[in-house]
Amino acid sequence: MSPTAVTAIDAQRVLDRCDDLAAVSASPDGIERVHLSPEHARVNEIVATWMAHAGLRTRVDQAGNLWGRFEGREPGLPALVLGSHLDTVPDAGRYDGILGVLSAVEVARRLHDRAGELPFALEVVAFSDEEGTRFATALMGSSAVAGSWCEDWWERTDAAGTTVREAARAFGLDPARIAEAARRPEDLVGYLELHIEQGPHLEAADRALGVVTSIAGARRFTGRVVGQARHAGGTPYPRRRDALVGAGEVVLAVERLARERDGIATVGRLQAFPGGVNVVPGLVEFSLDVRDEHDADRDALVEEIRSAAERACTARGLGLELTEVHSARGVYCDEGLQRSVSAGIAATGDAEPLRLWSRAGHDAMALAAVTGVAMLFVRCEDGVSHAPDERVTLADVAVGLDAFEAAVLDVARAHRDG
Amino acid sequence: MSPTAVTAIDAQRVLDRCDDLAAVSASPDGIERVHLSPEHARVNEIVATWMAHAGLRTRVDQAGNLWGRFEGREPGLPALVLGSHLDTVPDAGRYDGILGVLSAVEVARRLHDRAGELPFALEVVAFSDEEGTRFATALMGSSAVAGSWCEDWWERTDAAGTTVREAARAFGLDPARIAEAARRPEDLVGYLELHIEQGPHLEAADRALGVVTSIAGARRFTGRVVGQARHAGGTPYPRRRDALVGAGEVVLAVERLARERDGIATVGRLQAFPGGVNVVPGLVEFSLDVRDEHDADRDALVEEIRSAAERACTARGLGLELTEVHSARGVYCDEGLQRSVSAGIAATGDAEPLRLWSRAGHDAMALAAVTGVAMLFVRCEDGVSHAPDERVTLADVAVGLDAFEAAVLDVARAHRDG
Repeated sequence: MSPTAVTAIDAQRVLDRCDDLAAVSASPDGIERVHLSPEHARVNEIVATWMAHAGLRTRVDQAGNLWGRFEGREPGLPALVLGSHLDTVPDAGRYDGILGVLSAVEVARRLHDRAGELPFALEVVAFSDEEGTRFATALMGSSAVAGSWCEDWWERTDAAGTTVREAARAFGLDPARIAEAARRPEDLVGYLELHIEQGPHLEAADRALGVVTSIAGARRFTGRVVGQARHAGGTPYPRRRDALVGAGEVVLAVERLARERDGIATVGRLQAFPGGVNVVPGLVEFSLDVRDEHDADRDALVEEIRSAAERACTARGLGLELTEVHSARGVYCDEGLQRSVSAGIAATGDAEPLRLWSRAGHDAMALAAVTGVAMLFVRCEDGVSHAPDERVTLADVAVGLDAFEAAVLDVARAHRDG
Repeated sequence: MSPTAVTAIDAQRVLDRCDDLAAVSASPDGIERVHLSPEHARVNEIVATWMAHAGLRTRVDQAGNLWGRFEGREPGLPALVLGSHLDTVPDAGRYDGILGVLSAVEVARRLHDRAGELPFALEVVAFSDEEGTRFATALMGSSAVAGSWCEDWWERTDAAGTTVREAARAFGLDPARIAEAARRPEDLVGYLELHIEQGPHLEAADRALGVVTSIAGARRFTGRVVGQARHAGGTPYPRRRDALVGAGEVVLAVERLARERDGIATVGRLQAFPGGVNVVPGLVEFSLDVRDEHDADRDALVEEIRSAAERACTARGLGLELTEVHSARGVYCDEGLQRSVSAGIAATGDAEPLRLWSRAGHDAMALAAVTGVAMLFVRCEDGVSHAPDERVTLADVAVGLDAFEAAVLDVARAHRDG
């Protein structure tokens, strides 16, 4: 459907703001905005201004998350929270996470005049760390909100050796007060997140929007293949313990096993050391990310990958270390909130919305520990994400805003009826 | 044979000096000393002091090479040059190149009192860039001496974007005067280089020393596999163009083809980009180094690797770029100088020295363009090189010094007789 003029104006505002935030980057050549960085502080400031314009009272919590709130029909009611994240992967697109935050701000702006009708407070949250780019730990911001902050995280370091604790202090936060970021279940009505699909299924089905049924939990590992660095000219093959050739076999095994089992496994980061053009690599460091619709299938895939990698390395006299750095349980979306999202989409003319599971992780996974969650997916071009050519259309964003607003009103209706 | 006490003292001095230079490093965790760096300036200063103690008059040429010279039986005679290099690979050992320079200084020290007998001047050179670590171009220092400096090299950049031209100026050199570093053939008697073998053949044959017959020429490439960066969760396999999986196939093909053809090919450097744990790699950059005893065999291996890599990438919808950055012809050592090196080794008690070809490149390759060259290899433990655990024994260094000195005296004898 083509959007009304008013909706198109709102959608254009959201897209313009995505462009504005894309300019806040640690890299001159692309978008990179990581947890507790100067860029993180800057986008929090900018989005706080927009939140204030939408009638939201803002604050930053002790995990660096930015919040806005307006009260419902009476002060102090539990809140329905709308949100997503503002941090990015390296060389990112401009919509992953950001579109969800700015759409939530826009929906809040639309509903502000009707706050007196709402049986809950409305809050918008911009999470500080969903991607885990800087400290190799995803969902730090939303985990703090869910009360599942892990004390070990304080000692994690970024590439420069800075710990999370040091970075938090530099950002103006007090690590001793992290528990204050946690929300109590009784203060929350639920959590709704709009997000680009980051996959091709909506496009293939010719739908602008979809309802998320569950979110696959990723397990992530850092891996090391340990061989021996030696002269590339002088070392005959029988004496080589080439960590890179071993790692090449591991990379190929990861893809082969994931395809065989219909799961998803990816080596996203890999580097050979010492990295001399004339040195047989003695060490390779890599990352591994494994997902599947059901956790048991994913765990079985992890074990198959581990066995195959160990066999490949052992046969070459190489050591293999595979250390789990992140594990998220798959999360099923709240049935009632899913119905509200469906109702919201139906209100835009798509009577039987497509239901799909999310291969990507989202802040909603962490929030599920403390309240019911649901998600609204927006189609993106060719399923491309985590790349500069992430794209959405104005029409899809417009219908997404309408559906998101209608979903919130449906939650309000259900809350009153229930 | 066990060294005499005097020779052992000299050898210990050489090893102690190797330790001294190992402390001059850009890295606190290992040895890294690259062309035109502050560490390069520092080792030039230190070695110049030792050269002066040995009776050598020192200077640094316009390519950053350090020279020492004393005159023979009359001033201004052509020079026999002894030397090697002081630069290193990343996370290097302490003997590759360095042992050759410091052994040459020690031989000069021993012969200084007998300079009046020599029918040539004796020079010692410490080349500035053999490894090519900083600017991905090997043999810059010795190429300048051989008069084969390439003007394009001035614009090559290091990882920080500094050009060779800028680095040379910062080092105090004048790029306009690079031609002054070139030596004329008529001013040279020949070039002798002592070097650790960087391979296991001497150890396997239970020999301390060997005579090099030829030096294999390496061809080096930088490669790029170009795919598309996308979300690791949301992108199903049929839509992936994963540059790292393609590069994994290339790495395995390089090893397989080199082994089949009895050549040597190595991917020493490899990194996936953008490097997010949850991003399908869109780009891989890597290096390729190919060697063989004969240039024609090596070139045929290069073409087989290129074809196999292109097939692997094309099948996955990936782009492949393979750019040659270095090509050295194989070099045959001078017959007369080889005989002198053999005579030098024979004088230490090994009547029929092992003859072997060098799989590794050396400054002698560049020098061969301007004078006859020969090399004396010293056994190293387990053939390990380009790694921190490079090792030589005191006894081998001692017998190496004796053989090196005797080889110089044999060149003098042959020169007088000739």
